[in-house]
Amino acid sequence: MTSDGTKAMSADAAASFESTTDASEQMGVRMVAGAPYSAALGLRYLSSSPGRGSILLPWRDDLVGLDGTFMLAPGAVTALIDQTCGLAIISCFGTRTLPATLDLRIDHMRSAAPRASVTALAHCYKVTRTIAFVRAEAWDASREDLVATAQAAFTLNRC
Amino acid sequence: MTSDGTKAMSADAAASFESTTDASEQMGVRMVAGAPYSAALGLRYLSSSPGRGSILLPWRDDLVGLDGTFMLAPGAVTALIDQTCGLAIISCFGTRTLPATLDLRIDHMRSAAPRASVTALAHCYKVTRTIAFVRAEAWDASREDLVATAQAAFTLNRC
Amino acid sequence: MTSDGTKAMSADAAASFESTTDASEQMGVRMVAGAPYSAALGLRYLSSSPGRGSILLPWRDDLVGLDGTFMLAPGAVTALIDQTCGLAIISCFGTRTLPATLDLRIDHMRSAAPRASVTALAHCYKVTRTIAFVRAEAWDASREDLVATAQAAFTLNRC
Amino acid sequence: MTSDGTKAMSADAAASFESTTDASEQMGVRMVAGAPYSAALGLRYLSSSPGRGSILLPWRDDLVGLDGTFMLAPGAVTALIDQTCGLAIISCFGTRTLPATLDLRIDHMRSAAPRASVTALAHCYKVTRTIAFVRAEAWDASREDLVATAQAAFTLNRC
Repeated sequence: MTSDGTKAMSADAAASFESTTDASEQMGVRMVAGAPYSAALGLRYLSSSPGRGSILLPWRDDLVGLDGTFMLAPGAVTALIDQTCGLAIISCFGTRTLPATLDLRIDHMRSAAPRASVTALAHCYKVTRTIAFVRAEAWDASREDLVATAQAAFTLNRC
Repeated sequence: MTSDGTKAMSADAAASFESTTDASEQMGVRMVAGAPYSAALGLRYLSSSPGRGSILLPWRDDLVGLDGTFMLAPGAVTALIDQTCGLAIISCFGTRTLPATLDLRIDHMRSAAPRASVTALAHCYKVTRTIAFVRAEAWDASREDLVATAQAAFTLNRC
Repeated sequence: MTSDGTKAMSADAAASFESTTDASEQMGVRMVAGAPYSAALGLRYLSSSPGRGSILLPWRDDLVGLDGTFMLAPGAVTALIDQTCGLAIISCFGTRTLPATLDLRIDHMRSAAPRASVTALAHCYKVTRTIAFVRAEAWDASREDLVATAQAAFTLNRC
Repeated sequence: MTSDGTKAMSADAAASFESTTDASEQMGVRMVAGAPYSAALGLRYLSSSPGRGSILLPWRDDLVGLDGTFMLAPGAVTALIDQTCGLAIISCFGTRTLPATLDLRIDHMRSAAPRASVTALAHCYKVTRTIAFVRAEAWDASREDLVATAQAAFTLNRC
């Protein structure tokens, strides 16, 4: 109804105090590899920079949604995007801040192509004292032809 | 902007022509067991009736979000809810209609408790000619203390 | 990604310390009448109790979305729902807490009928230290035949 | 759950068959001026091109959310964004297609500044046979410092 009144700083400004791209990359690799569910899905860290992150979900037979279609399940794409949003936030703040998904909306433009892997890219475009706002996209062959988009809010728990 | 102009019928009305609870249950079991990603997550069909469905996500070590917390990943809960919404729709229309997630919003009230399994319940409360509207809830110990809620729209592809 | 770690209490528990139905009603009337945009839309307070609120949007010619249809604009219904969510939260916490819409998802089942007024009902079903979770519904003739549903998160700014 | 199976074409491709920028502009002006609720809010058409649209919500005393704050109500910003999404779609398809808001998620980064007008920009980035996917942003002083973002799906009713 009214303003949330918190002092907001841009994600980029916050990030500049916190991490270099190298540190960000190391954190990203650890984050993706060290999370059991990410590992179980076979997620692979691709890249990160302050406020941004990208992760690959390699196609796998057991991640298919409907038998015989060979297309990754929407739920697997959502898990990929959720994780990629987390990566974008951690790339911004470092591991002293644990982001928790507060809410996430995902739109599915279409199914991923049969036997296609999916890449996600997330951008944390705004942070307040307690909330990080993130947008993400996912595609199989080309970023010009998206599989899914997402918009999410994460809570920030400062350690 | 304007009305979508389609003749809408209630999900319950649609369902009454299509399925008995028994048939619904058989479809539900097949749907959950027969979907590779559902099987990989270990989802277990609990119940269904026209327009409603319930599925269990048993706790498992490799579905944990953050190492050492023993709490199911939000992305796994989302996958559970997505599947449960699909079950609610199929319970309504039968397998002649393939529902596809168009968009889904999930709110996470809190993490599931350590080592806790999660149950989801979905209700398809409205259908138009091309769209099914669904709401869902998920909890670990008690439905009075929710882990997550969701609101989603699915497209209906009549076979 | 991980738990948000805050001590959550149920909205109902919080409410029991804060307000009686009478006080809630007085606050509700003041809130709806005292907010310029609510007044401009012609919103009318219907009822409230701890964690719940209901507001009416009377039909008016200048709130129509598309000329000649006589149907209330979706944006007017969204404004009604946003305000009703705020009422549900204030009915829970009192005016010491200023709720601010963090994010809101609205689904439109159909347009409201020509020349029909719309009623909204919102329920604040969970609160954490900083976030209130709300669901709402809107209908014209009957609550059995919804015009719109919404799911939202509000930030709580304690005064 | 599964693919929606429709032949999708890019919004840009669709647009190239349908409109020139000039025609788009004339439609846009008519759409914004001719819609009663848009007119009542005082919305002003700014620009449009195939798949994109921009509208201004000039600050006005009676659109304030909370008395004494002089800040536009979130619900007014939502109405602005909803209308701007519609403009982006009509700019793509022409008036032969009536877009209807199916669902819309709005995130509020912060309140608009006191006495500040708000500008919205929407992009229809994907269309299928029955659905248009749109994203939008709104700001007061600078597009670098957003007030709100939105992600929405509209149904397309071909006339």
